[in-house]
Amino acid sequence: MTTDTSPRVAIGPSPDALLDSAVLRGGGLISPLESADALIWAGSPDSFPRDLPPSIRWVQLPSAGIEDWFEAGVIPKDTYITWTSAAGAFSSSVAEHALMLLLAGVKHLPAHIEAKTWRQFEFFSKVGTLRGSTVAIIGAGGIGRALIPMLAAQGADSIAVNRSGSPVPGAVSTYPAMRMNEIFSRADHFVIAAPATPETRHLIGATQLAAMKPHSWVINVARGSLVDTDALVDAIATERIGGAGLDVTDPEPLPDGHPLWDLTNAIITPHDSNPPGVRPAAFADHVSKNVTRFANGETLAALVDPIAGY
Amino acid sequence: MTTDTSPRVAIGPSPDALLDSAVLRGGGLISPLESADALIWAGSPDSFPRDLPPSIRWVQLPSAGIEDWFEAGVIPKDTYITWTSAAGAFSSSVAEHALMLLLAGVKHLPAHIEAKTWRQFEFFSKVGTLRGSTVAIIGAGGIGRALIPMLAAQGADSIAVNRSGSPVPGAVSTYPAMRMNEIFSRADHFVIAAPATPETRHLIGATQLAAMKPHSWVINVARGSLVDTDALVDAIATERIGGAGLDVTDPEPLPDGHPLWDLTNAIITPHDSNPPGVRPAAFADHVSKNVTRFANGETLAALVDPIAGY
Repeated sequence: MTTDTSPRVAIGPSPDALLDSAVLRGGGLISPLESADALIWAGSPDSFPRDLPPSIRWVQLPSAGIEDWFEAGVIPKDTYITWTSAAGAFSSSVAEHALMLLLAGVKHLPAHIEAKTWRQFEFFSKVGTLRGSTVAIIGAGGIGRALIPMLAAQGADSIAVNRSGSPVPGAVSTYPAMRMNEIFSRADHFVIAAPATPETRHLIGATQLAAMKPHSWVINVARGSLVDTDALVDAIATERIGGAGLDVTDPEPLPDGHPLWDLTNAIITPHDSNPPGVRPAAFADHVSKNVTRFANGETLAALVDPIAGY
Repeated sequence: MTTDTSPRVAIGPSPDALLDSAVLRGGGLISPLESADALIWAGSPDSFPRDLPPSIRWVQLPSAGIEDWFEAGVIPKDTYITWTSAAGAFSSSVAEHALMLLLAGVKHLPAHIEAKTWRQFEFFSKVGTLRGSTVAIIGAGGIGRALIPMLAAQGADSIAVNRSGSPVPGAVSTYPAMRMNEIFSRADHFVIAAPATPETRHLIGATQLAAMKPHSWVINVARGSLVDTDALVDAIATERIGGAGLDVTDPEPLPDGHPLWDLTNAIITPHDSNPPGVRPAAFADHVSKNVTRFANGETLAALVDPIAGY
């Protein structure tokens, strides 16, 4: 439902039927950029307008992780505009991928796939279960919050780590980032879903891996830089941990011949947890919800912090 | 809590600390077979007592699928004894395995594991999602009922098939077995969790496979005989369906060199969805609950139908 006071929303870089209908469904009017209150941007940072008209009060970016947008200088630190990312729009897809990697790991699927012969007796002692286990979710944003009920349905408890330690719904406990060292010997498995910042670089290194249990799996669906790859390779190769499921790597793309490719207990997926085919519809849903919030003067979803850089 | 009227329960073929404590916890007394009201049997059909004392009113068997026990003549058709299986005791483990196979299939994991190189562009078009899909669960007993909330947490709807068509909690619809042909073009994926009986042999054959969608995955965690293996191999090899995740096969064990081993979209696990390591604790829980029901004169869980043979 649009009215005279409906927000005027521009869509760029080019017209997009899915986004047009999302804006209208959310209660906005499609407008040229020059007279718009808000800009929904579906392109890359390179083509982003150098100067926005002064009428623009909100910009919606199409990515969930937005370090590229800061690096490209799109988002100034002293901006008066409200910026939102697509964080959360693709959370369910990525959480589903994380659960898949964790289940495949715990149930020893890579060795099964490579076996090509019936090895029941060997595998009997290796197939595990998530039931009764504790999974630490490092970075309880959209992906982490989407994962918690999926784990609960498997009979697994979640413990969350976030910056403040303020309780995350559904987690049995939430740790502030500064007490994160306590989780590595407590949890059975670890899912990394935190933003890439200077503070989170190599958040999982030799010390953290050494504190984990021998059956622990590390799942990374965030950014490769959060894990010290060399330390991880060493921990898997020497069987100090159960294994790792990585949708993101450092370096990325992972070069041919890298030791991770040859470790049975390293499952690599090439950053395809949020494949293009499912993205446009998920982004359009996110836009529609944010247009409604903008029209109603409510807090937008996935607000960007221009100072913190995420 | 045991009393003078507590049931006297024998455990065979040998003493078992886990089962002793399960019986006591359930409110029973440990008794020699000769004077027992009930027998908890943790052994094989071969060693089962040829003649039970007339005091025995209930026998608990240790298997979920009990065709072997009928074949061995342990359960007579004209028995006056109540027989229970372990159906349901291991349901959660098997349902977890079924979800793992389905997620791994939908997300194209076997090809990822075999790739050993970064093939993002190729995989982008192949990685799917369970979100928004419909999964048919054929045989909505313990495993099927345990699977429904796991699928719901992934945003997938379940449709159930059972003998009577009486509604299964959590399923969006339940079909009676005689209308099963309607599901093959309706659902996206299929999980087979029905008992092996003459009626369910080759329940999935060429006709059913031909009606499925090109992206459909077939998961079998029941018994190999429910699927026509040759028809399945043909459907996968010609890409008429997405693939199959099989914890059970026909023949079983699957012989080396069988075509299923060489199909990337056939995931074979060697009947290890319910591995021995997790079984004793799960069986003891089941025994404890049934002893309590027996003591209270309530209907036991996992009743065997001696006439129907399951």
